[in-house]
Order: sequence, then structure tokens, then C-alpha cells
Amino acid sequence: MLSKNQLKFLKSLHLKKYRKQHQAFLVEGEKSLQEILQSDWQVEKVYCTDRFFNTHMALLEAKDTDYQLVTPEELTQAGTFMNNYTGLAVAKIPANKPFSPPENGYTIVLDAIQDPGNLGTIIRIADWYGFPQIVCSQDTVDLFNPKTIAASMASFLRVDLYYCDLSVYFSQHNVPVFGAVLQGENIHKIQFPSQGFILLGNEANGIRKDLLPLIEHSVTIPQFGQAESLNVSIATAVICDNVRRQR
Amino acid sequence: MLSKNQLKFLKSLHLKKYRKQHQAFLVEGEKSLQEILQSDWQVEKVYCTDRFFNTHMALLEAKDTDYQLVTPEELTQAGTFMNNYTGLAVAKIPANKPFSPPENGYTIVLDAIQDPGNLGTIIRIADWYGFPQIVCSQDTVDLFNPKTIAASMASFLRVDLYYCDLSVYFSQHNVPVFGAVLQGENIHKIQFPSQGFILLGNEANGIRKDLLPLIEHSVTIPQFGQAESLNVSIATAVICDNVRRQR
Repeated sequence: MLSKNQLKFLKSLHLKKYRKQHQAFLVEGEKSLQEILQSDWQVEKVYCTDRFFNTHMALLEAKDTDYQLVTPEELTQAGTFMNNYTGLAVAKIPANKPFSPPENGYTIVLDAIQDPGNLGTIIRIADWYGFPQIVCSQDTVDLFNPKTIAASMASFLRVDLYYCDLSVYFSQHNVPVFGAVLQGENIHKIQFPSQGFILLGNEANGIRKDLLPLIEHSVTIPQFGQAESLNVSIATAVICDNVRRQR
Repeated sequence: MLSKNQLKFLKSLHLKKYRKQHQAFLVEGEKSLQEILQSDWQVEKVYCTDRFFNTHMALLEAKDTDYQLVTPEELTQAGTFMNNYTGLAVAKIPANKPFSPPENGYTIVLDAIQDPGNLGTIIRIADWYGFPQIVCSQDTVDLFNPKTIAASMASFLRVDLYYCDLSVYFSQHNVPVFGAVLQGENIHKIQFPSQGFILLGNEANGIRKDLLPLIEHSVTIPQFGQAESLNVSIATAVICDNVRRQR
């Protein structure tokens, strides 16, 4: 059974303030738990159901992780899932890694993405297309938001995020910026060079004005019907696919 | 102010059973409200804030829609949004339209999609890429689920959905089926004919076994990194983009 204090601690990790204070975050769901237990990330404790324990005992033992059996109801209370029949881990936020854009390749850059589900989905896309780094403006939603972690489907273990001032960042790197806008060059016709930044903007407002002059190539996914726009994670995937099919 | 009975009625429309009984559904959010008020869809009533009313009075009057002023708190109670500062409409479910695959073009076909957000996002993608029809297996989540409607960002007004037995449907149409699987032909190398079905499967289990023999072309989005899979709405967008860049 979860104690009152445990429940309070777990719920506090829904908020960035307490994640920062404790340098810890929540990981929910079977796949993410399995993968973090097989990674070199530090796991403080796993709260799991009998069912999860019986299936994944070996993983818990191999990592020598502290664990506690709880009910699905307790997991739902402590976490963010509507239902959780498996488990929830408290993991340590790792130290920042040194970060530099790949000499030969593409980096996704996000300006003020607000929805944690979008950020998590973009991390999963970056992992699928083999772009292992994402640069985020300082006002982009937190990587360690439990909904970001969940939507990334464990890809947060393989993709590094770096939060910074994007104007400064762009000025420090001589890499062409491809910005996703609604009135740019048709992405189907673009020849992509060997290196680039793929810049995507906020869900409602797009790329902020300050950054527009730093874009070398405005790119647009051609619209054949009548929807006004595409979701930002959808746009990211389509652009990554267009870059990758040439490389 | 919302009466108890109004609140009860609005909340009942979160459930398919009551949507069917009342042949009505909820539309939330400013953009969707604006678009449905400008469409020929039947709107029974709009519950909206002062703010929405002051901005969009002309739309309400042009459609001659019954409306009632409510608070954001009441909207949040009645609807599914975490916050709603604009409004919520009760709309009538329209009669089914006659449905046939386009003679020259592509139709998205969905097998047992369960997440209403995914279905809504796929409707928005279909609308962007100009594929105005989607065929769904009978166990695909309901189009009129409020989360589907919200995620479609008003594209439900332009894309027709048709629920049926997919085996029967495929057997009735002599159109090549392109099925999205994890071990198929690289989608970047495929020459798409003038007509086709784009078949996508359930989030966890993929395309059901019964349908696999009906696939003419198994297609795969090439993976360059380590994520195990892509979200089904992401895969839909990438496939649509690959089809459209040739046509």
C-alpha cells in the first residue's frame, strides 16, 4: 500500500517545481518501465502491480531496483494515466550532456512547444528517424513532464534534449535553418544539404517573429485539401521523412 | 447558468450510448464552433462565454442558433476540455451519406483505431491531404466522441466517415490495398497507382490477421533510429505525404 507521504511525493512530481527540487521524474506504463530498467538511467523506485512483477521480475532484479507492490487504483491515483495495470517508476533526472549539432545530419529545433504530448511524440519521431538531438527554446514544455515521457514511448532514453535561447544558439552554429511555415517552399521540391536545423514553432502562433530572419529556407508541406494546418508533431514527421528519403 | 438537467444532458453526450439515443454530439473550442456555425450542419444550441458571444455574435445570428451565456467553469464541467473560455455546441448527427471510393484517388481505411485523439488527428490529416473519405472498421472509436471532434480541428465537417466490415468492403471494391506494416516495402521506393486504399491498424496490435491476405502491397516507413514504431496518426500522415508527392 502507498503511504500518504509516498502518494504526496509521487503527485508532487507531476509539477516541474518539485521535479526540479527532487531531481526526479515519473515513468509510467509497461514499455517505458521495461526500457528504463534495461537502460543505464538511475531508477530510485518502482511501484508495480503483481502482474508486472510476475512478468518482469528479472528486470527488477538485474537492475537491483527498490520496488513495492501496489494496486492499479493506487497507480492511477499517483500517476497521470486513466488506467495503469502495470507500474510507475521514480527516476533520477540525469546530468546535462555536452551538446553540439552533428557535423553531418539534421537536428530538430522546437520553438515554444506547449503540449507535452506533442513534445513526447516529436521525441519518438526523432528516435525513429535517427535524429538523436533536439534543441528547445527555454519556454518549451519540460521533457520530464509525465505526459511527455509517456508520449515518447521510451524514446526519451535515446534522444537528448537541450534547452537554450534559440537566437543565440543559431548565431553560434553555421548550419542552415529550415523553418516550417504555412507559406514557404514546397517541401517535395527541396534539395536538402548534408546538414540542417529543422525548426518548428508553437502550436497556435508558429515560429516567433524574432527567429524568422534566421531562417534560410522557409518550408511548407503542400496542402491538397482544406484543413488550415497540421498538428506540429505531424508536420515534424513529414519533414523528417522528406529529409531522410534523400539521405 | 446551466440547469442541473442541462448539465446532465451535456455530460451524457460524452457517451456513445446517449449520443446515439439523442442523435446529438458536442463540439468544443473556438475554431470548431466558428466552423460549424458557418457550415450547413444542424446546431441545436450553443453554450458560450460573454467573450465568445461578443466576438462571434454575427455567426450566431446568421445561423439563427439558440444560445445561452455560461461561465468558463460551467463549460469545463459540461465538456471534456481542461479549460474552455469560449463555448460548446450541441450539434445533430447528420444522416449517413451514400459512400463510394473515388475512382481516381486514395481512401484511408482504419482497422480498430481506439484512441479518439488519433482518429481526430487522422481526420485532420485526410482533410489536409485532400482525401475526403475514411472507411473504418465497426470497432473503430466513434467519430462523434468529443475528443475525436476536438482533435479533428473542424475537419470532421469536410471528411466523411463510413463504418463497415472491412473484409466485406474490400471484397466489394477492386482497388489495391496498401497496408502499413513494420516489415513491408520501403514507402520511399513505391510507385503509387492512380487509386488505392491506405490501410492502418490498431495502435497496439496493428492490422488484424483476417485482413492481411487482402493487402496487395505491404508498406513500411523506413526506420533510421531505434524507436520501435510510430504513432498511427504519424504513420498516416507520412504515407499520405508519400502518395501525394507523386500525384
